[in-house]
Amino acid sequence: VSEFDWITRYFAPLTSKEGLGLRDDAALFKPSAGKELVITSDAITAGIHFFEDDAPASIAQKLLRVNLSDLAAKGAEPRGYLLSLLLPLDISENWVEGFVTGLTSDQIRFGIELWGGDTSQIKGPITASITAIGEVQSGQMLRRDGAQIGDILYMTGGLGNAALGLKIRQGELEPNDYLLDRYLHPRPQVDLGQRLVGIATASMDISDGLVQDAGHLAKASDVALAINVKQLTFSRETRDILNKQPELFELCLGGGDDYELLFTAPLAKKEELITLSEKTEVTITAIGTVGEGNGVTVLGEGGEPLELANIGWQHF
Amino acid sequence: VSEFDWITRYFAPLTSKEGLGLRDDAALFKPSAGKELVITSDAITAGIHFFEDDAPASIAQKLLRVNLSDLAAKGAEPRGYLLSLLLPLDISENWVEGFVTGLTSDQIRFGIELWGGDTSQIKGPITASITAIGEVQSGQMLRRDGAQIGDILYMTGGLGNAALGLKIRQGELEPNDYLLDRYLHPRPQVDLGQRLVGIATASMDISDGLVQDAGHLAKASDVALAINVKQLTFSRETRDILNKQPELFELCLGGGDDYELLFTAPLAKKEELITLSEKTEVTITAIGTVGEGNGVTVLGEGGEPLELANIGWQHF
Repeated sequence: VSEFDWITRYFAPLTSKEGLGLRDDAALFKPSAGKELVITSDAITAGIHFFEDDAPASIAQKLLRVNLSDLAAKGAEPRGYLLSLLLPLDISENWVEGFVTGLTSDQIRFGIELWGGDTSQIKGPITASITAIGEVQSGQMLRRDGAQIGDILYMTGGLGNAALGLKIRQGELEPNDYLLDRYLHPRPQVDLGQRLVGIATASMDISDGLVQDAGHLAKASDVALAINVKQLTFSRETRDILNKQPELFELCLGGGDDYELLFTAPLAKKEELITLSEKTEVTITAIGTVGEGNGVTVLGEGGEPLELANIGWQHF
Repeated sequence: VSEFDWITRYFAPLTSKEGLGLRDDAALFKPSAGKELVITSDAITAGIHFFEDDAPASIAQKLLRVNLSDLAAKGAEPRGYLLSLLLPLDISENWVEGFVTGLTSDQIRFGIELWGGDTSQIKGPITASITAIGEVQSGQMLRRDGAQIGDILYMTGGLGNAALGLKIRQGELEPNDYLLDRYLHPRPQVDLGQRLVGIATASMDISDGLVQDAGHLAKASDVALAINVKQLTFSRETRDILNKQPELFELCLGGGDDYELLFTAPLAKKEELITLSEKTEVTITAIGTVGEGNGVTVLGEGGEPLELANIGWQHF
């Protein structure tokens, strides 16, 4: 599959030596000794994962960051990525410039470089896929299947910002810059994720919604997770909206796109996590417990199990 | 980006241990000592790279094979791949089953396994991207920029089969099973490519057409390439059509999708290449020479430079 010269020109400056100037058939990467590779791939397409008229820089950043969030959840250090970009024939050079601008600033921010990929025409919506590659010390990747009975369940950041931001983007809630930004520009916990190696027993990112993703972690680890509603942390902006419209609470519990980390750690690591939270300035909240059994229970303010209608955002 | 349970079920059996059962956020790969990684990414979308009503197994194989062809051109041994699959909401389970069947047989044929990826909805044509990862001995990757003045220019297989196969698929030429198959199912030179390490000085695959791709190799190596028309090899089927319709010759020279290898090697390697061709049963033809200067010249039957109107298939 071919690239167009003018597109390659825009992307070539983003490459590291592994990209061979985007003038070869493939990237060439020499893995570091004693490391293993963590490799993830995610695609986004207009009308499903973003709005066609979102700023191209925002689209680029969302795509890169959802992949970086997977690396973060695995405790991996980002190294490089490959980009497949499929564009309608009437795309403007301005759009491509904007897209590249978004990648440029995120490459610096998160320490990752372009290694390769391809561009092509699509008879349909703007669509792009990234494969991101990171490194972890051998045997140290944070997996989903390591949660132990007796562990504490933690999450980073505030819950539901992106779900409310999406409602704002759709014009269904009043404008709020903070929440809209949290929807458009997820903040992968790349630094914190790497520091959780040796602390967390299991980890994943929250992309499909807290309850659904907790279900995945519970299943992989063969444990039961109990989430305490009264321990959940919300941003001030989300809290304000929930105070006025409490019916949006289930949306926050089930809404996707927060790209925070969900992880388990032994009780003995509590002090270490407090220190880590202070050092990284990332909120880390104990939101529940790991027990015998399976599935996820959400416990209400009085400790009673809640019935949840909307337990996750279905992409498909 | 989320996967649908029923899709994951189909893909999980394709995974190796690196895929962690498709139940984690990422794949985990331990590179072999002394090896470097060759990584390539190519996307295809209905209406551009294949016909929407092509058999799903053929679509899957085309996607995997165009990526394998890049690994082959670099002399790399295929290891694993990640797949991003974007499907319209009305896709049938039968279609997904067919797609997986195509991947299953190709995984066995080419010795590669599924490591991860994602599936999602698209409001548009069936679109898919693969990132394929292979290994080479450190320092041994076949690059585009190694051609030396005095080298011989070679290609594998016959020229133009896929370009004529596409015309057949479009109903513009009489049906011919062999050529149609060569268009639908490229045959990446995965085995031969690895054996060219230590022989070829530069190598790439022919995806955009012989003349255009030779231009890329010439530019990367900073040399001039001369291709002798009378040395070009064609399949019997292509030769038959060219005898009747000689005006299709330029299409064969410029047509894409052959996925054969184009490489350079010193004159002293001639005997080694003859032995290799016999052992692998792959036709290897000396088609030209490497000289000082730049660009590609195509020399006609009498040695005269040809004017070429159609020198490459533009995807975009």
